[in-house]
Amino acid sequence: MGTVNGNYAIGVDLGGTTVKTGLVSQTGELRYQNKFDSKGDAGPEKVIKQIALSVKDAIAHNDSGKIIGIGIGAPGVVDNNGCVKAPPNLLHWDSVPLAKQLQKEFDDVVINVENDANCAAIAESKFGVGRDYPDFLFIIWGTGIGGGIILNRKLYRGPSGGAGEVGHISIDYEGPMCGCGSRGCVEAYIGQKYLSNRTIEKVKTQPSSLILELVRGDYSKIEPMYISQAAEAGDELARSILCEAGTFLGVAVGGVMNTMDLRVSVIGGGVSAAGSLVINAVQDSVRAHVLKPLRDDIRVIQSELGNNAGILGAAGLVL
Amino acid sequence: MGTVNGNYAIGVDLGGTTVKTGLVSQTGELRYQNKFDSKGDAGPEKVIKQIALSVKDAIAHNDSGKIIGIGIGAPGVVDNNGCVKAPPNLLHWDSVPLAKQLQKEFDDVVINVENDANCAAIAESKFGVGRDYPDFLFIIWGTGIGGGIILNRKLYRGPSGGAGEVGHISIDYEGPMCGCGSRGCVEAYIGQKYLSNRTIEKVKTQPSSLILELVRGDYSKIEPMYISQAAEAGDELARSILCEAGTFLGVAVGGVMNTMDLRVSVIGGGVSAAGSLVINAVQDSVRAHVLKPLRDDIRVIQSELGNNAGILGAAGLVL
Repeated sequence: MGTVNGNYAIGVDLGGTTVKTGLVSQTGELRYQNKFDSKGDAGPEKVIKQIALSVKDAIAHNDSGKIIGIGIGAPGVVDNNGCVKAPPNLLHWDSVPLAKQLQKEFDDVVINVENDANCAAIAESKFGVGRDYPDFLFIIWGTGIGGGIILNRKLYRGPSGGAGEVGHISIDYEGPMCGCGSRGCVEAYIGQKYLSNRTIEKVKTQPSSLILELVRGDYSKIEPMYISQAAEAGDELARSILCEAGTFLGVAVGGVMNTMDLRVSVIGGGVSAAGSLVINAVQDSVRAHVLKPLRDDIRVIQSELGNNAGILGAAGLVL
Repeated sequence: MGTVNGNYAIGVDLGGTTVKTGLVSQTGELRYQNKFDSKGDAGPEKVIKQIALSVKDAIAHNDSGKIIGIGIGAPGVVDNNGCVKAPPNLLHWDSVPLAKQLQKEFDDVVINVENDANCAAIAESKFGVGRDYPDFLFIIWGTGIGGGIILNRKLYRGPSGGAGEVGHISIDYEGPMCGCGSRGCVEAYIGQKYLSNRTIEKVKTQPSSLILELVRGDYSKIEPMYISQAAEAGDELARSILCEAGTFLGVAVGGVMNTMDLRVSVIGGGVSAAGSLVINAVQDSVRAHVLKPLRDDIRVIQSELGNNAGILGAAGLVL
């Protein structure tokens, strides 16, 4: 099972399009990083080959320390045996024992596999703004709304590894249909696609908004990045859309705080990059939706790890 | 700190009106039970005296075994040191170190204090329908909606002991105001008082309902017990009210299942006594509000412990 002392871990961030692998020091320094095509539509065998290539490349760039293990962040549910189930963007992939398969290729090191949002939560806990908080809810706000729960500085996986799916908390039992088949999921309000569609509808009634100017009049190009840019420039509609989105997220987060007795939420992912306007809106909303004893202690904090959270958290699995 | 071997535990169920204490065997047999006035409006000192009286009476009825400890279930938040904070129905009670105070009176036994809903969850896990499930969400559906979370057969208290407040999960961000100051809390739909008020409004438009007959035309007497009776007798309005209430609860429970990767919910408390109609409605609603991988495994189960859950769970703290 490899050496347990040493200087570096390999962190793999597996996605539907790319596999990104890094050489990470014990303090979370990213010493080297690569990016390979993950061949996500070519089936598990091809994907595993690409991971192996990417890992070998990263190991080859290690010139000074020992490799203590390989951590892999994968989409989908990862069971307690490192088996990856139904990842949304990897085709022909029902249930694959990824840890076991890779162990054949790298037989002398520890290999751990974890869900990608859970990896990002670990990254926040070990190397990010979560270092200051033993217990928090991490949220990744991008295409969808994912999450990971850190309790006493450890990942809470739940009985079968599926914990953290806060995007599918319903904030309105009569709300819009979500892709998951349920109604009123917070993701169906503020996931990237849904948020863009909501914005398109609003811009149609307020075409003077800077948002429309930024996409040069092309409604189909409206997406959170432009809403953020318009908001930063002071556009009223954009600001109100982001505040509303933050408020929606806060309703769901408040429910989690009440249930799990948590106070802190760290928010990462593309939409969170919109910054303090949206982060403050989430915080205000969480405060309005938790019981009094929690209220003053509620903190909603923007992630600072950016795109490297996946690699760092994967490395964190074995560090 | 007393003996750790022995046959009995003392379980105390402290409420605003009564303090009920039982002598409980290690298998959860209730050998003796008493009931004292808790003097909840006379301040902590008086309440603690009443608890002591009640405990002494129960100990005096122990003729065969050793007392291994005293467990106390109390309303309000109980911190990690057995300090009871802001219990809703105990007056002049801000924060009282209940464990410490009682230890003066009973200096040779272990004393543990826990929130009452958490105690009931422990009772389900050790002695009730929860025995078959290592992980579940317990809900007590009465005046309010409380809860307790069992993970790997242990109570999940949260970082400061406040976990399980599922009654204040919002199921509609634009919903009715709740007593807690937030909007759309599931308690504001189905807590006893709210449910009764919702029913009164509906009965006004459908006065032929059996509910009105059961309360002899007195709207102010409408409460869940009569709704259940009318539903059992086949009254359509009563049935639809209970189904709707179950559906509301299921929205909140579904969010918890998604977040914590749970599959099972045990429901106790007065309203749950309405039985399979309402329990099935909760289960259907939970299934409709969780992600696919959880759906088939969702189980919503009615508690069978009844009014003794509090005493049994309190005893379970030290068994």
